[in-house]
Amino acid sequence: MRLRHDPTARERLLAYPFSYEKETVNPGAWQNHFPQNQPLHAEFGSGKGQFITTLAARHPENNYIAVELHAEVLLKVAQKIEEQGLTNVVCLLANLMEVDRLLAPDELSRIYLNFSDPWPKKRHAKRRLTHETMIQHYQWILAPEGEIHIKTDNQDFFEFTLNQLATCDMKLQNITLDLHRNAPEGMELVMTEYEEKFVAKGQPIFRCEAWQRTSDSR
Amino acid sequence: MRLRHDPTARERLLAYPFSYEKETVNPGAWQNHFPQNQPLHAEFGSGKGQFITTLAARHPENNYIAVELHAEVLLKVAQKIEEQGLTNVVCLLANLMEVDRLLAPDELSRIYLNFSDPWPKKRHAKRRLTHETMIQHYQWILAPEGEIHIKTDNQDFFEFTLNQLATCDMKLQNITLDLHRNAPEGMELVMTEYEEKFVAKGQPIFRCEAWQRTSDSR
Repeated sequence: MRLRHDPTARERLLAYPFSYEKETVNPGAWQNHFPQNQPLHAEFGSGKGQFITTLAARHPENNYIAVELHAEVLLKVAQKIEEQGLTNVVCLLANLMEVDRLLAPDELSRIYLNFSDPWPKKRHAKRRLTHETMIQHYQWILAPEGEIHIKTDNQDFFEFTLNQLATCDMKLQNITLDLHRNAPEGMELVMTEYEEKFVAKGQPIFRCEAWQRTSDSR
Repeated sequence: MRLRHDPTARERLLAYPFSYEKETVNPGAWQNHFPQNQPLHAEFGSGKGQFITTLAARHPENNYIAVELHAEVLLKVAQKIEEQGLTNVVCLLANLMEVDRLLAPDELSRIYLNFSDPWPKKRHAKRRLTHETMIQHYQWILAPEGEIHIKTDNQDFFEFTLNQLATCDMKLQNITLDLHRNAPEGMELVMTEYEEKFVAKGQPIFRCEAWQRTSDSR
């Protein structure tokens, strides 16, 4: 996701009443930011937000957080939220490396990781959002039976991800090596901006779900 | 594996002192067929036996069983065993659908499934050697921490297999979507006859290992 640096972006983003950053969040009290107390889902690395705003519109029974590192990008999500008048999705400008300090234990029901940066070089493995260390953070903030849903176009990243999830003792389900050819029956397919481009080129999309066996697996 | 039907094959096979069939096996007493009592590994669908005889020669510290449905094919394995003077590998002519009656609970330490018939049609899914029902048989005869090592060239079969293993609550490890490009470090790579052909054509080989979490996972 490359956007021209815009020094006013952060300020414009945080002007939206549904936008937060590290200093303005209160771990354990996320439900206060929504009209209704209902299951909380988050997309880690939301990009411009087509995926999460589509989901939020379709699922008024859930609350959503779009988490992004770059204000320029998250601003696009905020604009979508406002345009569509969505009240069940908020924005969090944050570095995911510290996500375990931005949400409280058990606070999330689901995490989406869509087309995360694969960081292909071995020496950058720790930056991958599915590195063991990150998964442990996710396990900390996920409720028992909470799920992580992962999509990527990068085969090596997917292979790495499956192994890291298994190492972290997460249970896998609905693994597919070519989502748009072999989607599990009844699966809701909401595409990201990236995904539409890859699919148009005929490239396979890899996807899996992982969930925590029990709350004592931490 | 297609070989011309040979009505004498079964008789010639069973003439080898290390060849067994359903009527001559004694579940729970497999170690009696080997000079030494040591971990028992089996290849389910051994084909002509290049894989298992290579392993047996390299690993005198294990005992091996080559299991095959077709006498014409297993005869080739028997010939290799005799030629190489191997004493730690035996042949079992059997239908794997009843493998849980040919070995006793906990008797096997490892199962190899190499390039099993993918049975691509959905209505034939129950014939796949990694169907849930078969995995439950394997869990019955595998010792606690026993492993299943699976290789295939068929992407859809691999995807099916990963999901069935997860459904059966087996723990996955060393998953690779392109074995000969991304082999986990230090992994011993013994190729089957099929595998050599696929690799020569540049086709990717999928591989994973699965193991039982605890003995009470049955």
